Amino acid sequence: MKKFDVVVLGSGVAGYSVAIGLAKQGLNVAVFEEDNVGGECVNYGCVPSKAFYVVSESIKNLRKINGEAYVDWRNLVDWVKNIVNETRVNIERLLETNGASIIRGRGVVKRIGVVSNGSFDYEYERLIVATGTNPKELKNIRLNGRSIVSNREIFYLEDKPSRLLVIGGGVIGVEAANIFANLGVDTVVVEALEHVLPFVDQDVASSLRRYMAERGVKVYEKTIVERIVENGSSVKATLSNGVELDFDRVLLSIGRTPRSTGFGLENVNVELDKEGYIRVNEGFETNVKNVYAIGDVRGPPLLAHKAIVDAAVLVKLIRGEETFRIPDQLIPQTVFSGLEVSWIGYSEKDLNGMSINYRRFKLPVYYLSAVRVKDSKFSFVKIIVDEKDYSKIYGVWIIAPNASEVVSSFLPFVLGRTDWVKLSKTPYPHLTVSEVVREVAEFILGESIHYVVKK
Amino acid sequence: MKKFDVVVLGSGVAGYSVAIGLAKQGLNVAVFEEDNVGGECVNYGCVPSKAFYVVSESIKNLRKINGEAYVDWRNLVDWVKNIVNETRVNIERLLETNGASIIRGRGVVKRIGVVSNGSFDYEYERLIVATGTNPKELKNIRLNGRSIVSNREIFYLEDKPSRLLVIGGGVIGVEAANIFANLGVDTVVVEALEHVLPFVDQDVASSLRRYMAERGVKVYEKTIVERIVENGSSVKATLSNGVELDFDRVLLSIGRTPRSTGFGLENVNVELDKEGYIRVNEGFETNVKNVYAIGDVRGPPLLAHKAIVDAAVLVKLIRGEETFRIPDQLIPQTVFSGLEVSWIGYSEKDLNGMSINYRRFKLPVYYLSAVRVKDSKFSFVKIIVDEKDYSKIYGVWIIAPNASEVVSSFLPFVLGRTDWVKLSKTPYPHLTVSEVVREVAEFILGESIHYVVKK
Repeated sequence: MKKFDVVVLGSGVAGYSVAIGLAKQGLNVAVFEEDNVGGECVNYGCVPSKAFYVVSESIKNLRKINGEAYVDWRNLVDWVKNIVNETRVNIERLLETNGASIIRGRGVVKRIGVVSNGSFDYEYERLIVATGTNPKELKNIRLNGRSIVSNREIFYLEDKPSRLLVIGGGVIGVEAANIFANLGVDTVVVEALEHVLPFVDQDVASSLRRYMAERGVKVYEKTIVERIVENGSSVKATLSNGVELDFDRVLLSIGRTPRSTGFGLENVNVELDKEGYIRVNEGFETNVKNVYAIGDVRGPPLLAHKAIVDAAVLVKLIRGEETFRIPDQLIPQTVFSGLEVSWIGYSEKDLNGMSINYRRFKLPVYYLSAVRVKDSKFSFVKIIVDEKDYSKIYGVWIIAPNASEVVSSFLPFVLGRTDWVKLSKTPYPHLTVSEVVREVAEFILGESIHYVVKK
Repeated sequence: MKKFDVVVLGSGVAGYSVAIGLAKQGLNVAVFEEDNVGGECVNYGCVPSKAFYVVSESIKNLRKINGEAYVDWRNLVDWVKNIVNETRVNIERLLETNGASIIRGRGVVKRIGVVSNGSFDYEYERLIVATGTNPKELKNIRLNGRSIVSNREIFYLEDKPSRLLVIGGGVIGVEAANIFANLGVDTVVVEALEHVLPFVDQDVASSLRRYMAERGVKVYEKTIVERIVENGSSVKATLSNGVELDFDRVLLSIGRTPRSTGFGLENVNVELDKEGYIRVNEGFETNVKNVYAIGDVRGPPLLAHKAIVDAAVLVKLIRGEETFRIPDQLIPQTVFSGLEVSWIGYSEKDLNGMSINYRRFKLPVYYLSAVRVKDSKFSFVKIIVDEKDYSKIYGVWIIAPNASEVVSSFLPFVLGRTDWVKLSKTPYPHLTVSEVVREVAEFILGESIHYVVKK
């Protein structure tokens, strides 16, 4: 029986990163993968969606000044496939070059120290579970890979939909709605809870909703899709508000469910939480010695950069080096929704729930030329600090074009490595959205040039 | 005679920022402006060029996948004018709301303490010169506002040029060439020195040149335009390599010349350097007491964000508060050239000239999906550190899409506020170009996942 120092289940961002990191240290590492190398992010998530995003934003930018913009759907999908493929091949090459083995097939744990891909058994010293999540389904609305699809199929459809129903206005839902609306698809989003992105504050959701409306997306909130009935090549959706609509595709994006069953984890009694995520301690070890879980399958936030950091931490830990841990709450989140939403830390809603007294600085950023050229009137930043001690930061919220890049400049503050005075003295380059960092710092210090302070 | 605590000559970024900052403190401030409020950046530089940039990049993104993309030139120019106008009106409103007066006409110093706009004389306690620069001309090639234009006219032409000659491959030249090439204009760049962006290293210029070639821009380096002859509605250019070419427009972008004469500065004996920039001390004061100069007119780097920081420093100084100073060398620079070039600090060329021993870490960044979706194969980062002490950073060079935003994340390092270990533990969000910051830090620390280290 072939024996490995480390077996990793899943070759997504968490899995491939930890495998490469450990293989570099000379450990004998194998990664089991039953689907495509790269996992959800590379194959069905961030990578294809960002490729679509670049194109759909470009179309928006030209249409806004009455320009003509058109892309053939097949060309677009072929180009996206090509990018995904290049990314995947690069990861396979990195695994191989660093000496990690890729074993095809699902890795199933038979007993402590033994994992099988169905054909062969392999021994391991340490097991790292990085199996990610699956799209969630509804009891009465199931994925069929045809009329009702998830993020796994939406970027690879044979034909461009003409009428798309998005069930669930979370991150995947609003990103997809923005993309498809810009591509000229009639797009409707139905969200069961209070508002789109239910975990953000009302003001953030409101800016995004107004932006989406401007882009022609119809949003129903506090609304449920009661029924989907297939009717030839289209489907009829009946909403809880009585509205009936016809679509040719439905994207089901109501959430994720941990991919923690079917891997034999029960054979070694790995403990799951009540939602099915794998329980881990500070060092990502499960209740079973030498069995670890990282990335999405250990629980939210479900983000590739959390997976990367998890992997980096675990590599150090297994090497016996001094390690570190970024609190999950301080992992930045990003929504690539045209008017991008990016944040670190807590919302006002969170803080109210924890009965924490805070002060909120909320500033429009449309005056920034880098925002104005992207025509995003609904942009703002919101900085939430301790009511008395402004150096204690609870939350940073950026709702603006390029917010996903700009949030990085706030990271040193949130991680306790800088302060408002230093940020106010930082020459963020003109003409970029990052300039807002200095502006906000100046405002909080009472030295703002571009904001009029109302007394 | 009306009397002001502070008179500012010029309402560009330096001028309006210092005027607002001081007016907020209750000082009686007047800004003299003979042209449009907002100066070079708002009216003829960053703002219109970035508006063009958003559109021209969008066209590129669609054409790359064989999409159709077309924008009517008049619609484009009208939209750009509208953005510039909104920006200008916002600045005027900020000046007024904060109580600073805008005095129309050129402010000319008659004697110490007295400035005139030609109609009225005004007294001042302190004078701040923020008059910027003008486009440089050649002895044999002069601007005529028609066939031979500068950045002042190029974004407002009546018709789209069909063949554009760009004389001078500096920042303005390569930015304009990229924009016009993407708009479908036959574009030729002629640079007299070794390579485009003559102040950057050969490898940086080479990436940019290859990118420009891919975009259809013809670049002649070490070449001079010897003669321009008008011929009806077109001009014939004769290059020093014997090539003769016809164009309908010429953009002259060979550099800038300080706007330090014509303002009566000689009447109070303000000292200029040999290039005509106003000499100032650490506190931006000229050789004449209570006469200051900030922004472009005090010398390079000629950048809006340097102007903003100059203004912030001077406001504190005049208020008698503790102030600060960012060394000019640590001001980030950005070139919005599709494949963007952004840097802080020194080039290898600079360091070789200073006989400083350094180590260079140069890494491709095409593997980053955020770069790959923008299709920029020639992207790289180059970090130049002390040969022995890697914590001593001499230069950061980013050649990649979005480099202008990403460079901000390196600022804390260059300003001495963080280190490689901290950067390696920062969860820069996926899928952004900012991720390169963590990757580079990991590479330098020997912990890279995405780079294969050749031994």
